[in-house]
Amino acid sequence: MAEWWLQILSLPIHNISNPRFINIFCRNSLSLFQKRTDSAHTAHSEFGRRKDQLQSRASPSSPMKPTDMAKEGTETTEETEHMIEKNGAKETETVLSAGDAKEMRAVILSGFGGLNKLRVTKKAMPEPQEGEVKIRVKACGLNFLDLMVRQGNIDSPPKTPLVPGFECSGIVEAMGENTKGFEIGDRVVAFVNYNAWAEVVCTPLDYVYNMPDDMTFPEAAAFSMNFVAAYMMLFEVANLREGMSVLVHSAGGGVGQAVAQLCSTIPSVTVFGTASSFKHEAIKDSVTHLFDRNIDYVQEVKKISPEGVDIVLDCLSGENTGKGLGLLRPLGTYILYGSSNMVTGETKSFFSLAKSWWQVEKVNPIKLYEENKVIAGFSLLNLLFKQGRCGQVKTVVEKLFSLYNQKKIKPVVDSLWALEEVKEAMQRIHDRGNIGKLILDVEKSPTPLMASDSTETSEAGEEEEEHEGDNDNKERMPFIQ
Amino acid sequence: MAEWWLQILSLPIHNISNPRFINIFCRNSLSLFQKRTDSAHTAHSEFGRRKDQLQSRASPSSPMKPTDMAKEGTETTEETEHMIEKNGAKETETVLSAGDAKEMRAVILSGFGGLNKLRVTKKAMPEPQEGEVKIRVKACGLNFLDLMVRQGNIDSPPKTPLVPGFECSGIVEAMGENTKGFEIGDRVVAFVNYNAWAEVVCTPLDYVYNMPDDMTFPEAAAFSMNFVAAYMMLFEVANLREGMSVLVHSAGGGVGQAVAQLCSTIPSVTVFGTASSFKHEAIKDSVTHLFDRNIDYVQEVKKISPEGVDIVLDCLSGENTGKGLGLLRPLGTYILYGSSNMVTGETKSFFSLAKSWWQVEKVNPIKLYEENKVIAGFSLLNLLFKQGRCGQVKTVVEKLFSLYNQKKIKPVVDSLWALEEVKEAMQRIHDRGNIGKLILDVEKSPTPLMASDSTETSEAGEEEEEHEGDNDNKERMPFIQ
Repeated sequence: MAEWWLQILSLPIHNISNPRFINIFCRNSLSLFQKRTDSAHTAHSEFGRRKDQLQSRASPSSPMKPTDMAKEGTETTEETEHMIEKNGAKETETVLSAGDAKEMRAVILSGFGGLNKLRVTKKAMPEPQEGEVKIRVKACGLNFLDLMVRQGNIDSPPKTPLVPGFECSGIVEAMGENTKGFEIGDRVVAFVNYNAWAEVVCTPLDYVYNMPDDMTFPEAAAFSMNFVAAYMMLFEVANLREGMSVLVHSAGGGVGQAVAQLCSTIPSVTVFGTASSFKHEAIKDSVTHLFDRNIDYVQEVKKISPEGVDIVLDCLSGENTGKGLGLLRPLGTYILYGSSNMVTGETKSFFSLAKSWWQVEKVNPIKLYEENKVIAGFSLLNLLFKQGRCGQVKTVVEKLFSLYNQKKIKPVVDSLWALEEVKEAMQRIHDRGNIGKLILDVEKSPTPLMASDSTETSEAGEEEEEHEGDNDNKERMPFIQ
Repeated sequence: MAEWWLQILSLPIHNISNPRFINIFCRNSLSLFQKRTDSAHTAHSEFGRRKDQLQSRASPSSPMKPTDMAKEGTETTEETEHMIEKNGAKETETVLSAGDAKEMRAVILSGFGGLNKLRVTKKAMPEPQEGEVKIRVKACGLNFLDLMVRQGNIDSPPKTPLVPGFECSGIVEAMGENTKGFEIGDRVVAFVNYNAWAEVVCTPLDYVYNMPDDMTFPEAAAFSMNFVAAYMMLFEVANLREGMSVLVHSAGGGVGQAVAQLCSTIPSVTVFGTASSFKHEAIKDSVTHLFDRNIDYVQEVKKISPEGVDIVLDCLSGENTGKGLGLLRPLGTYILYGSSNMVTGETKSFFSLAKSWWQVEKVNPIKLYEENKVIAGFSLLNLLFKQGRCGQVKTVVEKLFSLYNQKKIKPVVDSLWALEEVKEAMQRIHDRGNIGKLILDVEKSPTPLMASDSTETSEAGEEEEEHEGDNDNKERMPFIQ
């Protein structure tokens, strides 16, 4: 520890609309996570100085475990971390300088696992290949899927180390050969097949779209995956029409809010939503009927609509597939588009979660025939990066921009986080604390916890402890290994 | 036999565009079916007299087996059958008179099984209940589903005896109380929950639609189930749009031809179809790519479209479900809407067919998620009669009538058959001999075989013998027990 350059920093909060808490890490000591104590909180908030630019380069001779070294390969060893010794309220941060133009900051996932696998590091500046656009990133979207990537709980996970992130907004800085349709300085939003959580990304022009003039960078990064997925599910898979009804889980999340807004563009659509009770006040105007996420939503929906609903959008998987199919009206469509129960399910063991994933109820086509039902799966990432449907997605993006320009939709940004705060941001989405989208603001500096931000984050911490566990020994601290 | 009124009849063919053959029955002797001999054929065609009205009432004292008596309950014993003694070319018909106004002719299915379970009998004239329309039937549709009903191979089969048939066209003759929207004399097409194959039916007004002025009664009866099913599958379940591709099996059948016509109303839709080779010349203009029904259509489609198709409409079931799902492009939809392989599969035993029905591949929703695919089931009858979606179907019927009036669609009628010829008609659909829809023309008199009608019907008979068998002893004659 003595070899680290320690620095205690405190910055004013800007652009954060909701409370948050800071996880406590120490690089060379596993499982130091604890619920924040009042003493740490008080000590932390005492530092009120602002620094517009945080610059603190870790020593090249910083100690690294051999395994870390092996994983990182040629990467620069400089990195940034919040370091807080829990008992003494002794807080330390080491923040990377922006470096010269041949390097850039990026979030690195060194291996699949808990939050401690994430850190900010310097990487070589990427340059655009033929057909690619180089983007100076302003904002990146953070999705539940990123938690699954971190755990390696995805189909065909890539090799680590990697830079996570699938969407960003920013300014075009250069273009590869044969890259038409963009100019340097264009404000764009883009999909990236990993690597979005960085200061600069390069991605094929088919994944890049010019942003509406009025759209902010955080809005654009909040917009791309969630609204495109919601639109395609509602209108291209399920064929939403006037008078229909929709059930969406996690109604307060990024996709949930996108679904609610898109449903409001069609007359007489009834939206049933499930969400944690504490979000109900904030989102009650966006959906027709709200249920607590812990109650039996099947019974609640049937009380209001005995025949069920026309569309069920399920990001939970597991037993919810059977429930969702059971809730469908004739000709109704159930769409599985995620599997957040794998990460935040009610069971405590990771293995039982994996089991519920693979044991999801199989569907007999003949039952669908007898009941006139439709079941679909939707994965935007696979559509974009495995199945080459860029053209279809581009058309959808254009339709959505048109709706945005008509002020019929507007992405909901929950909160902005510095790259260095990616762990806290992930914890927040894991705890389902967010309303709308979490954004990594690349130009933002880490913000310390404020005294007024205590209550909700404590609850989020408790919720996480109740539900998760990688194994019996670490049951109460699954993400801090 | 001696107590039967025997009569040898021969009528000119009218309105029959395709050859057919006459099955050979004898009421009190099972399994008399044989392939028609040249001698029988020659003898048959010698009778060229026309009778505009066939009237021959069976004696009330006609001998009946006790089992038949028990099954028939209170039904009138009068009936009509073609009776042909095979070896001596001795042909006999006993045809029912129209009777007085308190009775009507109807096709009766006395029990589930082969063709011998069907006959024409007299039943009490039905009268409309509250909310019902009484229709003097002109034409009834015959569907593959009717073969399944005859065998009892449907979900929750009703009790026998019953009058089969789910669709008809005709003229409104009376209305029950509180039945608005129709007038006596209206030309209508209607869905009926059984009982369509009769001179008169009563059905709730929600299932009755005024026909376009230019539509003939056979067209209307050919139109209702097939076009409504095709429309709802293409546009309400699968969301057919410009530039998409569709694979339809049995492209020469009623639904297949409806699908082809509806696809032609959308620009740049590619239709792949499978059909028996002998139909290809007749239907080649209606689909883009035609394959023989016995070849590996998966390979053939992939040769032309390596990425697969957007919509697969499957009435075959069994292993075709896996094949169909495998052929889908991303966001593509597979729809199972029937199970004709149950009746005409390539395996010989009914039990192996039933096995393939129940062993249809189950679908893992997670696989759908990874592959971005949709699987649906569609049963128009369940939608109408179990799930009460009359309003939605009515809207579809109106859209289809509009397309008809614009001359964008036109039902294809394969052939017209008298009620007394229902067995031959069923054999034809079973043998996949039809191009378009088979219609029971209630006012038509039975038509004997003509000399020019030999070749194809012989083949049909052979095909039937090759493919079907209720059990080992009767393997070559499953429908004539």
